[in-house]
Amino acid sequence: MPEYAFDLDTSVTPSDGGGLWRGHVTDRWDIGDVPNGGYVLAIALAAVRGAVRQPHPLTVTAHYLGPCRHGDVDVVVDVLKQGRSLSTATARLVQENMTRLALLATFGDLASQRGPTLVTARPPELPPPDACGDPGERPVGMGFAVRPPIVDRVEFRPSPATAARLAQRNDTARLEGWIRLADGRPLDVDCLPLLVDATPPAVFGALQTGWVPTLELTVHVRGQPTGSAWLKVASSTSALIDGLLEEQVELWDEAGNLVAMSRQLARLLPPA
Amino acid sequence: MPEYAFDLDTSVTPSDGGGLWRGHVTDRWDIGDVPNGGYVLAIALAAVRGAVRQPHPLTVTAHYLGPCRHGDVDVVVDVLKQGRSLSTATARLVQENMTRLALLATFGDLASQRGPTLVTARPPELPPPDACGDPGERPVGMGFAVRPPIVDRVEFRPSPATAARLAQRNDTARLEGWIRLADGRPLDVDCLPLLVDATPPAVFGALQTGWVPTLELTVHVRGQPTGSAWLKVASSTSALIDGLLEEQVELWDEAGNLVAMSRQLARLLPPA
Repeated sequence: MPEYAFDLDTSVTPSDGGGLWRGHVTDRWDIGDVPNGGYVLAIALAAVRGAVRQPHPLTVTAHYLGPCRHGDVDVVVDVLKQGRSLSTATARLVQENMTRLALLATFGDLASQRGPTLVTARPPELPPPDACGDPGERPVGMGFAVRPPIVDRVEFRPSPATAARLAQRNDTARLEGWIRLADGRPLDVDCLPLLVDATPPAVFGALQTGWVPTLELTVHVRGQPTGSAWLKVASSTSALIDGLLEEQVELWDEAGNLVAMSRQLARLLPPA
Repeated sequence: MPEYAFDLDTSVTPSDGGGLWRGHVTDRWDIGDVPNGGYVLAIALAAVRGAVRQPHPLTVTAHYLGPCRHGDVDVVVDVLKQGRSLSTATARLVQENMTRLALLATFGDLASQRGPTLVTARPPELPPPDACGDPGERPVGMGFAVRPPIVDRVEFRPSPATAARLAQRNDTARLEGWIRLADGRPLDVDCLPLLVDATPPAVFGALQTGWVPTLELTVHVRGQPTGSAWLKVASSTSALIDGLLEEQVELWDEAGNLVAMSRQLARLLPPA
């Protein structure tokens, strides 16, 4: 039985034999009054994982057509290819006959990949989690009249440099820190697509602005995380053009392994 | 009437009123004997563009389930949301009842975007095209017994530093140069998803290896290119892990505007 909020709130059950699954969108992962995009993506991925042979979403892209509501949700899964090493599927989150999220994913097994390794990307250099952030003034809450529920589910501890940047907004759209599920849920591949989308937007380091709704999010799962529940996270935006921006996120485990890379296209809303 | 190879070879016609389009995969964009992934993506996008209201694929992701063959191809388009400012659709390239490519795209109009601009990414510094590369020894031909047809369609002129790197393979997976459609076709948004996938793999700068088939390619179109037919291209790979790699590509026009960003997940094949 699932014991942690993430597992409880992303569980799905097959509703027929033909690719229809049922889930439930809770209000525990909201930002403002909208469920976090990484959270609803995790619901859809739970259904795809139930429909394909392989355990890991090597690459998944979600497009956000409209905000999900709290309550029941249908997940319509269509497996396009069920292969020996790779399977590809689409899925849609549907509420009130409207598609809220559409995804395209290719699943594989990270443990069976073979080939050379050459990593020039480097994890951020951070003091330990206890020397980062301050639970009383977590920046993800900035600008909201009410503390967003997601900050009780996902703990983000900015590095001292990032905390200073978030206070000053100094034209550098880069954030670094530690992140974990707040109830201490052990790490696995399943929670990575949520965690890449659960830090404050990197553009908050550069500009005073409103929220930054995601149009599209692509996640590459690059490794199975080991170590404690903490991951290092680094996010950055290099091009905000006419209100549209890309954001790149990397997640690293405590052993120094890159476990996920993401890139999203998002729209910047004016300050409230 | 289309005059250029790109327009001729990516044209599609509606086959019914219900989302089915017909196209033709030519042998003029092959690498080895497989049509280039950016080329077949352009065929699928031509059909989606015909089905939605907006002109520009702000973000598109393609998953490559199997190589396309030369000949007729069905494009099955499903518009998930037809909105005032944004529309989202899926499309599949189908040959012999098998899905060869599946995509998920959100279209919009770049000219109608409004909001702030802050770009910290920078175009590569390059000598002019005439001082780059050498048509006689274009590196995309390396490792192939027969000159790949695509090098007659897409001209890539590596910078002197990149040409040296490709000759030495020095552990730095970064390539820079100029790129254009070889017949001088004027630039527009339509050809950008092809051009991000038409340079040699960046990993060729680092390792002696075989070809690098794409599993997934995501393209963000960030601007409408201006200037001559030439674009600056910079590609890099920061994490090759167990034979799977990400590759990032940026395209810049001669005015210094970022016009496209892409990231792909690909598999590295051993040297032939």
